[in-house]
Amino acid sequence: MALVTLTTDFGTADGYVGAMKGVILRLAPGTTVVDLAHDVPRHDVAHAAWVVATAAPEFPPQTIHVVVVDPGVGGARLEVIVAAGGQLYVGPDNGVFAHVGAGADAEGCWAITSTAFRMAEAAPTFHGRDVFAPAAAALARGLPPSLAGPATCLAGTLGWGGPGRVVHVDRYGNLISDVAPGPRAVRVAGHELAVRRTYEDVAPGELVAYVGSARTIEIAVRQGDAAQALGVHRGAAVEAVP
Amino acid sequence: MALVTLTTDFGTADGYVGAMKGVILRLAPGTTVVDLAHDVPRHDVAHAAWVVATAAPEFPPQTIHVVVVDPGVGGARLEVIVAAGGQLYVGPDNGVFAHVGAGADAEGCWAITSTAFRMAEAAPTFHGRDVFAPAAAALARGLPPSLAGPATCLAGTLGWGGPGRVVHVDRYGNLISDVAPGPRAVRVAGHELAVRRTYEDVAPGELVAYVGSARTIEIAVRQGDAAQALGVHRGAAVEAVP
Amino acid sequence: MALVTLTTDFGTADGYVGAMKGVILRLAPGTTVVDLAHDVPRHDVAHAAWVVATAAPEFPPQTIHVVVVDPGVGGARLEVIVAAGGQLYVGPDNGVFAHVGAGADAEGCWAITSTAFRMAEAAPTFHGRDVFAPAAAALARGLPPSLAGPATCLAGTLGWGGPGRVVHVDRYGNLISDVAPGPRAVRVAGHELAVRRTYEDVAPGELVAYVGSARTIEIAVRQGDAAQALGVHRGAAVEAVP
Repeated sequence: MALVTLTTDFGTADGYVGAMKGVILRLAPGTTVVDLAHDVPRHDVAHAAWVVATAAPEFPPQTIHVVVVDPGVGGARLEVIVAAGGQLYVGPDNGVFAHVGAGADAEGCWAITSTAFRMAEAAPTFHGRDVFAPAAAALARGLPPSLAGPATCLAGTLGWGGPGRVVHVDRYGNLISDVAPGPRAVRVAGHELAVRRTYEDVAPGELVAYVGSARTIEIAVRQGDAAQALGVHRGAAVEAVP
Repeated sequence: MALVTLTTDFGTADGYVGAMKGVILRLAPGTTVVDLAHDVPRHDVAHAAWVVATAAPEFPPQTIHVVVVDPGVGGARLEVIVAAGGQLYVGPDNGVFAHVGAGADAEGCWAITSTAFRMAEAAPTFHGRDVFAPAAAALARGLPPSLAGPATCLAGTLGWGGPGRVVHVDRYGNLISDVAPGPRAVRVAGHELAVRRTYEDVAPGELVAYVGSARTIEIAVRQGDAAQALGVHRGAAVEAVP
Repeated sequence: MALVTLTTDFGTADGYVGAMKGVILRLAPGTTVVDLAHDVPRHDVAHAAWVVATAAPEFPPQTIHVVVVDPGVGGARLEVIVAAGGQLYVGPDNGVFAHVGAGADAEGCWAITSTAFRMAEAAPTFHGRDVFAPAAAALARGLPPSLAGPATCLAGTLGWGGPGRVVHVDRYGNLISDVAPGPRAVRVAGHELAVRRTYEDVAPGELVAYVGSARTIEIAVRQGDAAQALGVHRGAAVEAVP
């Protein structure tokens, strides 16, 4: 039984997520459809990339991850299927998959052009329903991704500002950096913070750095909100102090 | 294996959705329960009608759609099962199903009175758990809707302001009208907008009209929020310019 | 086929819920994973307790309920499995399970120490992924909870302010008390309200008390928000008037 996850910026007040689920379950009956995250901030491709990169690898091999945060829908960006790290990804080529697949074994990338993988008449503003859901259903039915269309290369990038950055701010206001474990401290927004084990190593309300669940250095305020406390957003510099 | 979708205004912070899922899975083990949308604005029946009308038809035939946005719970409105367009709908008769079924083959409507379809003692303030979830479970177990109770007619209506209106504002602030494709332009809030193909046909920040994914004319601001930009809500006039 | 529900304060914008689902589905293929509620207010253990206490008993016996609202993650609180009322609960011992199990047959409580029930190297800040999801998967595969680790007692409590209180405020601003049905009226925030049957027994905008779906007395404003109207929060006194 195939497994399909959905990540979107569609929210949970409209019918867009429901329409995608309906198409998948109609075209590939018996598929297990799993909500990954639907409240990605509108059009925030980098946010979606982080969410998928941290969650998708936990799923069984060959899980099909549909990721639709698609400000360029109807425009020039390709619709693609990507095989990387033993997982399958379906969505627009907007930089999400270049980030998710970075470091993983890139096993292939195909444009979605075959009508076995997309509706013949796709609405130009809703490829989630008319392209990506049918493509996921085709994969769920066991069609190989190479039948979706010609092999291609990913063109999208996220335009990160280079290493040593906050790459995600989570619901708690925790600042997740791309700094690998190792340094004894980090510098962020004028504060130098020793790398500790966890929140409980400081008093409530205090700043703390630690190796986070993504195995990079994070900065938090215990029982508080570091992003707010420091006025820091994604992209802010995080400097390792050896 | 039966398929049940849930649409509510219960949000995702309380136990109400969970209680409904528990009842369905207890009374009809093996059912696949799918979240359609739970952040329908509180008591906004017309919003729910739009969500369900656009998403439900994508599901396989005989999917059971439970729709509980129910400001009149415990009052005079009927609890019903509606068969229309090859799908089954369960919920209060508040206008949602009259809208959803309009244009579809109306195959029947039944009041939910049998104790095979509802708890003997239903809490007057939570029919989602005590009436609609058990009714969905009865259908999921294969009971025909005609066993739920006497055939009836839908009395609820949405009280739309007539054709030529904004009928839904989505998360992106896109204005979805009930104007059918055809006119070369539309007039809304003092603006005349040519009907284009998609967002990308205008510059970021500009207004654009196009045939939306519901196959009616929509108005958006590319990478912006048309509802906010125009100060327009559901019900605003949209005039076709031939 | 095992059933696992998830209740968290992780929200639906990050990858945390997705990572937990991935682990469960990887370690216990075929499990049905059900979202119960993910928008529990941050770190609000009492809120989570109410949500789970009202929803979990509706599920089939031996459903596995994972509840991760965990401000003390990485600290001294135990990670536990609790069997109570025919259901299984997995999460930190923070008072949620003491509340949920109160009144139910307490069938046992075990610390999660065995590596058959948790990752050998658990991230100190994400036990949802590395402890509770693996524990749920072990139960879903049929391992008895007694294999998780040594039997223990629950230490966490919610610190309620005693009986006669508002114990939950729901999305609608309804005030749910712990006052059992019986009194002809209740007093709250200076108002004495007769206990009626349902919202429809008063005019829109008026205060009403009634026996709620949790079988205790609730206070609402019909088509309004009682919490806002009365300026009342969880913990406010509700006095029975015989």
